[in-house]
Amino acid sequence: MASTSSLALSQALLSRAISHNGSENQIALPSFSVLKSTSPRTTTFFHCQRSASTNSHSLRPLVRASAVETTDTTTDSTLVDKSVNTIRFLAIDAVEKAKSGHPGLPMGCAPMSHILYDEVMRYNPKNPYWFNRDRFVLSAGHGCMLQYALLHLAGYDSVREEDLKSFRQWGSKTPGHPENFETPGVEVTTGPLGQGIANAVGLALAEKHLAARFNKHDNEIVDHYTYSIIGDGCQMEGITNEVCSLAAHWGLGKLIAFYDDNHISIDGDTEIAFTENVDKRFEALGWHVIWVKNGNNGYDEIRAAIKEAKAVTDKPTLIKVTTTIGYGSPNKANSYSVHGAALGEKEVEATRNNLGWSYEPFQVPEDVKSHWSRHTPEGAALEADWNAKFAAYEKKYPEEAEELKSIISGDLPTGWEKALPVSINFLIISIGVMEMALIYENIFQTYTPESPGDATRNLSQQCLNALAKAVPGFLGGSADLASSNMTLLKAFGDFQNATPEGRNLRFGVREHGMGAICNGVALHSPGFIPYCATFFVFTDYMRAAMRISALSEAGVIYVMTHDSIGLGEDGPTHQPVEHLSSFRAMPNIMMFRPADGNETAGAYKIAVTRRNTPSVLALSRQKLPQLPGTSIENVERGGYTISDNSTGNKPDVILIGTGSELEIAAQAGEELRKEGKTVRVVSFVCWELFDEQTDEYKESVLPSEVSARVSIEAGSTFGWGKIVGGRGKSIGIDSFGASAPAGKLYKEFGITVEAVVAAAKSLI
Amino acid sequence: MASTSSLALSQALLSRAISHNGSENQIALPSFSVLKSTSPRTTTFFHCQRSASTNSHSLRPLVRASAVETTDTTTDSTLVDKSVNTIRFLAIDAVEKAKSGHPGLPMGCAPMSHILYDEVMRYNPKNPYWFNRDRFVLSAGHGCMLQYALLHLAGYDSVREEDLKSFRQWGSKTPGHPENFETPGVEVTTGPLGQGIANAVGLALAEKHLAARFNKHDNEIVDHYTYSIIGDGCQMEGITNEVCSLAAHWGLGKLIAFYDDNHISIDGDTEIAFTENVDKRFEALGWHVIWVKNGNNGYDEIRAAIKEAKAVTDKPTLIKVTTTIGYGSPNKANSYSVHGAALGEKEVEATRNNLGWSYEPFQVPEDVKSHWSRHTPEGAALEADWNAKFAAYEKKYPEEAEELKSIISGDLPTGWEKALPVSINFLIISIGVMEMALIYENIFQTYTPESPGDATRNLSQQCLNALAKAVPGFLGGSADLASSNMTLLKAFGDFQNATPEGRNLRFGVREHGMGAICNGVALHSPGFIPYCATFFVFTDYMRAAMRISALSEAGVIYVMTHDSIGLGEDGPTHQPVEHLSSFRAMPNIMMFRPADGNETAGAYKIAVTRRNTPSVLALSRQKLPQLPGTSIENVERGGYTISDNSTGNKPDVILIGTGSELEIAAQAGEELRKEGKTVRVVSFVCWELFDEQTDEYKESVLPSEVSARVSIEAGSTFGWGKIVGGRGKSIGIDSFGASAPAGKLYKEFGITVEAVVAAAKSLI
Repeated sequence: MASTSSLALSQALLSRAISHNGSENQIALPSFSVLKSTSPRTTTFFHCQRSASTNSHSLRPLVRASAVETTDTTTDSTLVDKSVNTIRFLAIDAVEKAKSGHPGLPMGCAPMSHILYDEVMRYNPKNPYWFNRDRFVLSAGHGCMLQYALLHLAGYDSVREEDLKSFRQWGSKTPGHPENFETPGVEVTTGPLGQGIANAVGLALAEKHLAARFNKHDNEIVDHYTYSIIGDGCQMEGITNEVCSLAAHWGLGKLIAFYDDNHISIDGDTEIAFTENVDKRFEALGWHVIWVKNGNNGYDEIRAAIKEAKAVTDKPTLIKVTTTIGYGSPNKANSYSVHGAALGEKEVEATRNNLGWSYEPFQVPEDVKSHWSRHTPEGAALEADWNAKFAAYEKKYPEEAEELKSIISGDLPTGWEKALPVSINFLIISIGVMEMALIYENIFQTYTPESPGDATRNLSQQCLNALAKAVPGFLGGSADLASSNMTLLKAFGDFQNATPEGRNLRFGVREHGMGAICNGVALHSPGFIPYCATFFVFTDYMRAAMRISALSEAGVIYVMTHDSIGLGEDGPTHQPVEHLSSFRAMPNIMMFRPADGNETAGAYKIAVTRRNTPSVLALSRQKLPQLPGTSIENVERGGYTISDNSTGNKPDVILIGTGSELEIAAQAGEELRKEGKTVRVVSFVCWELFDEQTDEYKESVLPSEVSARVSIEAGSTFGWGKIVGGRGKSIGIDSFGASAPAGKLYKEFGITVEAVVAAAKSLI
Repeated sequence: MASTSSLALSQALLSRAISHNGSENQIALPSFSVLKSTSPRTTTFFHCQRSASTNSHSLRPLVRASAVETTDTTTDSTLVDKSVNTIRFLAIDAVEKAKSGHPGLPMGCAPMSHILYDEVMRYNPKNPYWFNRDRFVLSAGHGCMLQYALLHLAGYDSVREEDLKSFRQWGSKTPGHPENFETPGVEVTTGPLGQGIANAVGLALAEKHLAARFNKHDNEIVDHYTYSIIGDGCQMEGITNEVCSLAAHWGLGKLIAFYDDNHISIDGDTEIAFTENVDKRFEALGWHVIWVKNGNNGYDEIRAAIKEAKAVTDKPTLIKVTTTIGYGSPNKANSYSVHGAALGEKEVEATRNNLGWSYEPFQVPEDVKSHWSRHTPEGAALEADWNAKFAAYEKKYPEEAEELKSIISGDLPTGWEKALPVSINFLIISIGVMEMALIYENIFQTYTPESPGDATRNLSQQCLNALAKAVPGFLGGSADLASSNMTLLKAFGDFQNATPEGRNLRFGVREHGMGAICNGVALHSPGFIPYCATFFVFTDYMRAAMRISALSEAGVIYVMTHDSIGLGEDGPTHQPVEHLSSFRAMPNIMMFRPADGNETAGAYKIAVTRRNTPSVLALSRQKLPQLPGTSIENVERGGYTISDNSTGNKPDVILIGTGSELEIAAQAGEELRKEGKTVRVVSFVCWELFDEQTDEYKESVLPSEVSARVSIEAGSTFGWGKIVGGRGKSIGIDSFGASAPAGKLYKEFGITVEAVVAAAKSLI
């Protein structure tokens, strides 16, 4: 399965970013080659000071002496002022040209972000995907012109002057909110408030986990920070409290969040809806809290705060930076009017006068440009240093290096898929004698109709445990339902503050935060495959995060058990009805509803390989039989025939089921065949994959000539009209469920063999 | 529109509860008659002590001397112990019989809840809908056997012994989680964690608002408390932080929440995922916090805490009660194993021995029964007192009384609907000369094709403002987007701590909390019609609350603007695509997508009248024309013809659009007609309402003979297959959107007149 491509990692990842709207039928996983850097630098110790030879600029300060020490020597403050105003005016000009956007935040946050990108953060602008870079997340994503201005100044090729000039326009690299799949240098996709800080927690979790697994006393190969800017809006969102509680619980000391405390939200002063004591709340959550009272030009205060934050290694730090939204605008600063609209020609002019800015729109003053230009050679040097460090690591710790490479590159270890259960027929045709022995070791994972029935949540657990052993970046957990979702990885410990090498994540009852943290983990490195779990109905709590998974191409695996009224007595608050439909309607997410062991394994196989598309697995609480005709490989087809007694592709009727109802369809098929009918039974395990098939294949499963079609699924019939056609019938539940044992519910709601037989007969 | 039914309020509300799965085609709003009580009691001052004559039990303590004073005289502690153990064993026995359920919480929370229901709360068990009752919300809804046991002991007819014995069974009044529509005495529907405390905030908000609007110096006609029990799970959910921040901001002093601090969640000790300092967090939010260290039998501590909580009138109070989950079970107490499964026969026996419980399963000891029996006469007396008080109020303040009655009963004021815009044709056929003059005052609200075009979010604002003036219980707000959602009520102030009479709610950026708070408001009194607003895409943040609206029959109106890629430059994070489909799949919620002023008014008219079904209005950011052929009345049909040049119900093609794309369908129709085709253009404004129509009506709009059908909607095509049929075509967007001006996006995504014309021609 692993590609033999020799693309450099950065290029491979760039192509990953570029493939956004393209087909994913061909899985091409990038190989790992960045480590073969031709850099002449062979520094053997990471915390060395880089030599002055990389300093192409006389004003370049001596920065980043070590990972935990912020410099004391800083750029002269006139130039900082100028750079800060450059950021402000790039934002003002771009929003003005687009006549759309959010100038207020960039104007207020320019000082702290200048210091971050110019003085503190370690990155290589020419390789935005360098593994050991510091990560930055603009959680207040509407202020994206701030980030675009910074990327532009820092020398990222993704944001050139013409990109700034096409801000928010069709096809540009500078969309209305930050999108990782459009703009290399943007780590995650933000805008929906609170998602960004949750992603940042995921990024910081990933770093802490990798550092614990791979760092050695003589080689701290994993060592980077996660920075984020969050606004009042993020602070009000519940997801932020969820993830910040976890960040402290996990002791994510290398997570540093700047709280842009500007007292303005869209509806006006935050006094109207937000009067809690944020500092105290964060202290209660377990954060270290620092207040920078003058965020508008207190550069040294900001620097000192970052230094302090880095010195606190056992807690995440919130730096509350009091700023003025729209700083510099004489008539709009400190008001909601500067939040989300262009300043207008007149006010732009007034702001230019006020800040003494005599430059043309989009112009970067030469001294500012020159000052920032050092980041290109410095970044290259940082990466080269690290590559050399990795070379030494690999030499000394080859096994660990192999695992880490897999996580960094996204190359799955050769043969990983053999860890999964196999279908007997697949086994016979596709493997040799030598491998047979290996597979027979896992024979308990090979399902035949004679295998004992089991709930798909239990079958899922077999897959999760098998995959975690085979795939180094596979990790995850549940929102306090591990024993119900069956998601514990038995061979691994818990990821906790004191045991961050563990691969079982304990999210507590925080579904929304869980999903968004997993997005951060997935986007940290291509080889991370995070899964997360709760009851399927509670996808409602995390839907915003799941949509971001889909949009930002984060291949999170959502393990969603208790997938229908089949869960029984917990009743309608816990019984999903409309959820299958609701995900089938969402772009770029695969909604699987496997029927048994084969289909569960097949779903995982695809979920693991499709790294740019998240997957949702809807799994049963109740025991299900291993059905004849299902197969691991056919899951890739999305829909396929499991039994058929017709000839010539013209059965009397086609019965279509998914998950726990495929058994009912199969039984109804048997009944009808006893009465002499020709019946095809089809499993429709993943609609999105069926949609990808050729017309010929689709016709072979659902011939247009056969209009007698019956679907059965213990969920909303919404959407099935397209599958069963105008004449067909859909058996499902279009109301809420009820509290009762599962069998009773199926009977009362008419999800029965009899109902399928009757519907089929009415159509034949 | 107001019914002239003479049902008593309690009966009317009972029938409302019972109508759960019934048809809602006939709107029968209950009239207000409980005030015509025949009670002989004519107490003129509310804070009187009730006379001893209602005391039918020698042990009855003197309780509830006033609304803000907890009694010092309490039942002897042996009897309390016995009552508490009765609660424990009713829960144990019911779970054991069902072999399903959650005994742990009831066993731990029995003491605090005994004190609440027996000593503190004011209610009338024979009229669970008495307006001035104290409200109780079990936010940790899985522990519902606690509440059922309490309702049973307190004398509610909804939970008799046979109901306890049919816990979690088909058709019982004791479902697996508390459901207001199944069990009178249960205020709201809980189970999904955090929803309950959010509902409680809504209930307390409603009380504070009504008290401010209606209480007089000589008559505090509105005066009740809201109590809630929340668990560790609720505490972890982000929604809880959102709503508790608001509760403090609003100064909801009559909200008292008990935090069942038992240190156990499903995955084990809360140490694994929940180590924040909850007390300090609540203090940071602005709550008064009290810690009861011995929640297992510290009755006096609990009583003192409640007394203290009531004395703090400017803040909500969190009483942290440290308890032992599964208290009394010798082998399972204080472990996750007692959370969500029956104890098992052996452990039940051991617990009986341990607690010295010699009674039969489900048996309530006679002295306990006798002790609790006083609540029936006492409750009747409380209600009678209040009715007398209301009679005095009505005499002195007839106008206010009229408004309050409307809110209590749900009877809309006569003629309320005239506040809404009217269609000209409707005006001519349905009203007389006298009313004509009145309506002409609102003539600006009458839309003809000549009326200026406008965004439906603006047209919505006209309706909201008109309705708020006409309907006393109409109130709402936005999640910090009032100026974008256009939801400000101009004639009213903000609901704030110091101005709780205001009807503009300021939720801050807390979508999830907003939805759930509105559920609480809606379920406080039938005449409350709360609306809430955000961008349509952010329904993803509040979907769990919206599902509870639908399930619990809370007629919240969701005002969701920026409803498609038509919002333009904000890009795909802000552009809903799959959201229309996702709500069409949800039971008992009406998804409206109005095309212009008439349809917006029509949608509001139905949203206001259908009190047991929430509505979602998807509204445009961009300006839309007033279309020929739309009408307010036809919105009730869900789908209807706006133009047609065919005869005999057999057009060449049917073009179907919704919202902003109805204009495109209409234009395409014109194009095709120019080429000699017969074309019907259909507005499909609300699928759920179309589904309710007769087959004849449906056939008159979508004749089965006409298979040439084209739908156009700037959203997912998922689900349209059923409408356009096997031959039809659906134009929509099945990928994520992009950042660009709206016009550009429509062109690039092919949502155009040309595309509709081409699709139609391919079918004709």
